[in-house]
Amino acid sequence: MSEALRTDLYQLTMMQAYWKSGHDPEATFDYFVRKIPSGSYLVTAGLSYVLDYIENLRFEDDDIEYLRTQGFDAEFLKHLRNFRFTGDILAMPEGSIAFPLEPIIRVTAPIMEAQLIETFLLNKMNFSTLIATKASRVVYAARGRSIAEFGLRRAQGDGHLEATRATYIGGCASTSNVLAGKKLGIPVSGTMAHSFVTSFDHEIESYRAYAEAFPKKCFLLIDTYNSIEGAKKAVIVGKELEKRGEKLMGVRLDSGDLAELSKHVRRILDDAGLGYVKIVASGDLNEWKIDELVNKGARIDLFGVGTELVTGRPTPALDGIYKLSDVVQHSRHMPKMKLSDDTIKATLPGKKRVWRIVEKGKFIKDVISLDEEHIYDALPLLEKIVEKGKVICNMPSLEEIRNNAGKNLSNLPDIYKKLDGAPVYPVEFSRELVELRERIIEKIRMEELS
Amino acid sequence: MSEALRTDLYQLTMMQAYWKSGHDPEATFDYFVRKIPSGSYLVTAGLSYVLDYIENLRFEDDDIEYLRTQGFDAEFLKHLRNFRFTGDILAMPEGSIAFPLEPIIRVTAPIMEAQLIETFLLNKMNFSTLIATKASRVVYAARGRSIAEFGLRRAQGDGHLEATRATYIGGCASTSNVLAGKKLGIPVSGTMAHSFVTSFDHEIESYRAYAEAFPKKCFLLIDTYNSIEGAKKAVIVGKELEKRGEKLMGVRLDSGDLAELSKHVRRILDDAGLGYVKIVASGDLNEWKIDELVNKGARIDLFGVGTELVTGRPTPALDGIYKLSDVVQHSRHMPKMKLSDDTIKATLPGKKRVWRIVEKGKFIKDVISLDEEHIYDALPLLEKIVEKGKVICNMPSLEEIRNNAGKNLSNLPDIYKKLDGAPVYPVEFSRELVELRERIIEKIRMEELS
Repeated sequence: MSEALRTDLYQLTMMQAYWKSGHDPEATFDYFVRKIPSGSYLVTAGLSYVLDYIENLRFEDDDIEYLRTQGFDAEFLKHLRNFRFTGDILAMPEGSIAFPLEPIIRVTAPIMEAQLIETFLLNKMNFSTLIATKASRVVYAARGRSIAEFGLRRAQGDGHLEATRATYIGGCASTSNVLAGKKLGIPVSGTMAHSFVTSFDHEIESYRAYAEAFPKKCFLLIDTYNSIEGAKKAVIVGKELEKRGEKLMGVRLDSGDLAELSKHVRRILDDAGLGYVKIVASGDLNEWKIDELVNKGARIDLFGVGTELVTGRPTPALDGIYKLSDVVQHSRHMPKMKLSDDTIKATLPGKKRVWRIVEKGKFIKDVISLDEEHIYDALPLLEKIVEKGKVICNMPSLEEIRNNAGKNLSNLPDIYKKLDGAPVYPVEFSRELVELRERIIEKIRMEELS
Repeated sequence: MSEALRTDLYQLTMMQAYWKSGHDPEATFDYFVRKIPSGSYLVTAGLSYVLDYIENLRFEDDDIEYLRTQGFDAEFLKHLRNFRFTGDILAMPEGSIAFPLEPIIRVTAPIMEAQLIETFLLNKMNFSTLIATKASRVVYAARGRSIAEFGLRRAQGDGHLEATRATYIGGCASTSNVLAGKKLGIPVSGTMAHSFVTSFDHEIESYRAYAEAFPKKCFLLIDTYNSIEGAKKAVIVGKELEKRGEKLMGVRLDSGDLAELSKHVRRILDDAGLGYVKIVASGDLNEWKIDELVNKGARIDLFGVGTELVTGRPTPALDGIYKLSDVVQHSRHMPKMKLSDDTIKATLPGKKRVWRIVEKGKFIKDVISLDEEHIYDALPLLEKIVEKGKVICNMPSLEEIRNNAGKNLSNLPDIYKKLDGAPVYPVEFSRELVELRERIIEKIRMEELS
């Protein structure tokens, strides 16, 4: 299905206005983020969706028919019927580390085309990048313990698959979401629900029934009535499994003081000779709570994280934006910027590139330059992925993207991964960019504000 | 497409355990919310999705094949191949007002069936109810001014359509999301972007191009460089439109001090004889900011609200849960509840109903009773909508659902709609329910905790 109408109405009205006025210059837009919700860096994600979209972007008959009912011009709609994206796109590969103001994607195309794709690009990139970044923080907080994503029931509706995909890119080990397992090949994991326990006359009967069905993959939920009593019953069932030559895999805590309970349950298991049984913990966890649990010496082997991971709580949206930076008119580049009454909303003019200085495998600082500049001893971060409307890069697999993110995260110095109070990573503007910005601000002041 | 695998893995492992142990009693689950994120009430939404799902729920060959690769039992998978939902569902109609702990949906079915549907039901109901409730607050804060939903670019990926649908149920007047217009029939609206303005050599040229393309539906964005200067240019173009017998419809502010700017811009427009031109405002708005703007006497006719509306920020997930309340064994009802180390996580046992006392068209209080009770002079809120797996209610249209929500909201006394500090709406438990709860807690203490 084409997603051409997955856009804001104003993209289409602006397109009609561009078309009617014969104003369709080549334009360059940058996708970038002004402010990072928590922490100092972003793990970029969502680019695969953008590439799929670009390749399949067209208006179907029923799209055109709908637009006709909304009063669009018949000639303009004829033009839309043959619409294709024909521009160039540079982007940081999916799974990159990015910082505020850096162009993550740079689109150059006739302005009607570049304008239309804004909304889809923002919708996909903002959400996937938000969640991949969040996941990387949760994984970092767990210091080597695994994170299982359990968020489907609290995910924002149909966004669940993208959410799960992004948590995997950010470093989560598995998901409870079976559809994500089937469609994306992500490992699936799960234990049991309280209803399973309460549906039986006695808690221990429920444990036996589960152990019978999954003797090799048995995790028992122990907090339905009382976690300590549950742990004691899990020991009984664990011993019964041993007699059959099997091993209980784990128990799950889902409420109460997880640090204290996990230590107590660990002792109960160890005292019974069940040192091999893992302890899983869940219950409204996030990076800060996990960090605190680890600091308190909680004996937890695996964390199940749901709501916060898939919604990005406390900040459920990334303020990524897509801003015009250059227009070519009469074969001349006209760098563009928004000034705004709020300084923070001003943008960087001109076609730009992003460079990274890396020393001994560690990221030191980035530089945003104009397109024609070359920053020596620095890695260019933007790669050309679409040329004249065709995707020219290899589409990496999800595993490759996840590995790329993991490698990049390991190259980012730990100081920038601090959950709170991480310093700002240095992102410099080249002198040419600074000078251009000053010239454009002056030009706007002269021409528009006097 | 069947959504059978849109579930948590543990639902399927529990199903296999139920199936292997021959434990498949009739079970009743309640969907309810423990805590409302902001405010004192919920506007329920999402039920239409649940009904579609129930009617189409089956495991396709490729679903079964995927589960086989995950180690499920071959005989169990044969059983799944013929799986259908055969139970009964009672629910509050979509667009109802609900309060914490009240069953919004009550599912009674063989436990394997009732268990499987949990995740989908939670995913859909939690999100749509969250957003419809949020929207109703934003609409209330605007006191009669229209709310246009502009959230697509910040929506959580593919959740955007459900988000837009829920904002419409909650009372928003329109959306920028063209796909929602096409698929759901929601009115679409939009203005122009900063890029449209900056792409031209001069701001006023962009206004003229837009007015030329949309002489009857012309909204001009005036804050790209400076809102006051933008307003003056909008006046020029408004006058040019008048000469052609047309009227400028509106101007949009998107940054700065919206209260002060709107008053200043109103004066500029009025002084020029353009008293008919509307002022639209946008820019990270929410119910609190709109309330403040209205209190400050801002001259804003229409608010565009994006991020907060479609993500529910600051609380992007509703903690709605689905808990086992009753099991029939040997033809006897066995009421069930979760006790938990956290008292807040304990649940209400038994098959239940919800009643509402209404006086002079206003909601006074609700009562949660056991199924067999009748509360006199009260309206029953749960209606049977699925019987033996078949949907038996008429599926209301989106307009009907929106009207239902609007009617219910007008019957809810205003005191409960206060943005902050609204009192708790009285929800009582019948004496029989209280007594049952005490008996079950005592039984659990005796049997599981000693």
